Amino acid sequence: MALTPALYLIPVNISDEPLSNVLPEGNINIVREIKHFIVENVRTARRFLKKCDRRIDIDTLTFHELNAHTDLTEVSSWLDPLRSGEPVGVMSEAGCPAVADPGSLAVAIAHRDGLRVIPLVGPSSIIMALMGSGFNGQSFAFHGYLPVDDAARARALRELESRSQRDGSTHIFIETPYRNNRMMQTLTSALKGDTMVCVACDVTDSGRESIITMSVADWRRAVYDYTKRPAIFLIHRAK
Amino acid sequence: MALTPALYLIPVNISDEPLSNVLPEGNINIVREIKHFIVENVRTARRFLKKCDRRIDIDTLTFHELNAHTDLTEVSSWLDPLRSGEPVGVMSEAGCPAVADPGSLAVAIAHRDGLRVIPLVGPSSIIMALMGSGFNGQSFAFHGYLPVDDAARARALRELESRSQRDGSTHIFIETPYRNNRMMQTLTSALKGDTMVCVACDVTDSGRESIITMSVADWRRAVYDYTKRPAIFLIHRAK
Repeated sequence: MALTPALYLIPVNISDEPLSNVLPEGNINIVREIKHFIVENVRTARRFLKKCDRRIDIDTLTFHELNAHTDLTEVSSWLDPLRSGEPVGVMSEAGCPAVADPGSLAVAIAHRDGLRVIPLVGPSSIIMALMGSGFNGQSFAFHGYLPVDDAARARALRELESRSQRDGSTHIFIETPYRNNRMMQTLTSALKGDTMVCVACDVTDSGRESIITMSVADWRRAVYDYTKRPAIFLIHRAK
Repeated sequence: MALTPALYLIPVNISDEPLSNVLPEGNINIVREIKHFIVENVRTARRFLKKCDRRIDIDTLTFHELNAHTDLTEVSSWLDPLRSGEPVGVMSEAGCPAVADPGSLAVAIAHRDGLRVIPLVGPSSIIMALMGSGFNGQSFAFHGYLPVDDAARARALRELESRSQRDGSTHIFIETPYRNNRMMQTLTSALKGDTMVCVACDVTDSGRESIITMSVADWRRAVYDYTKRPAIFLIHRAK
């Protein structure tokens, strides 16, 4: 049966685990049928497709790179195959496309033109960190990167702490991996001792995964090294 | 090889699709090894386990129900098998456990006692709706249910609209399925015509899935019926 023509949002592995641990088999069957891709990085995308199925003939596929360097006026034309009935895939470098990367522009254009959009299941470090934190999942916010400047960052952290104190919401953010330890320093000095902090690190990597939730007071005494490890930070008011 | 002892957070299907379309095969291998479960609903959990593998002998498993009726002082004892080295699973009725259900309490206790927590990949209608919306995935908030009262709800919606106008964030919420159409009425009358609204409905159900993003002005003219269909609502400021 031919694949339904749509813009498929295809999650990519975020660790070196076997794909069968982190992606449904159905995704692989869909990927095999797609000839046109909008990707954050062509090299990563090719490697992922080869990992899905060695028999995929990469040279017969078309790739368009959608990232910070893209001429955004071109993106609409990349959906032309879909306008004539062929499926198009969107992939980011890791995790779920269009969540924290430029893929959402392709999705917005598809909606503008009444084209069908189909997201597939896959690893989202944000949602997995939230599940693993033990914090409130009924009300949460993801803020991307906080300010780099120490004073501005401390202010931003205290503002999120106040919001959680007010309404019980969970606040999630990320950092460039080489700055993770510095984030932890600012965080432990800026926040109250009984505020809870979760660090979810190397999610889906069975050998390295670490998800730890403790009070700021306990983090102050803890020994850790998150340098260069992909981490998600979550904060929540004291229980 | 014996399964690493941990509290496994096991996502459950959210539609009647074959499990191989929505869950990694690796999850099934993990589920087969677990004898102790903390679940939102025992009947749903049994049905899910049978769907994972008909050969699972349900009668040899222990189930504890964690939901609105649970005596919360009991939950800690349900982690006793894990304290003596046996894996324990957490499952909600649908989707990712501990995100919008009481499972997070079991996770919080595990962290308090230094027990390992491992979230697995699976369908999250929230993250899939966000991917499929075409809205900003770098900054978003999930608010659960909005107030039921029409006036309070209209105020809450306008407040989310203002926040998106201020900082470009995406706002996500849900409704009891039989009230979906009423939500759409309040939403289209309360919000500005150029504010964008996405409704993601029956996500992962290949026959019924519908993800539509339009301006409020276009929704006012649209014909739809979301009654009793599981839907996620997202709003974002005009582009």
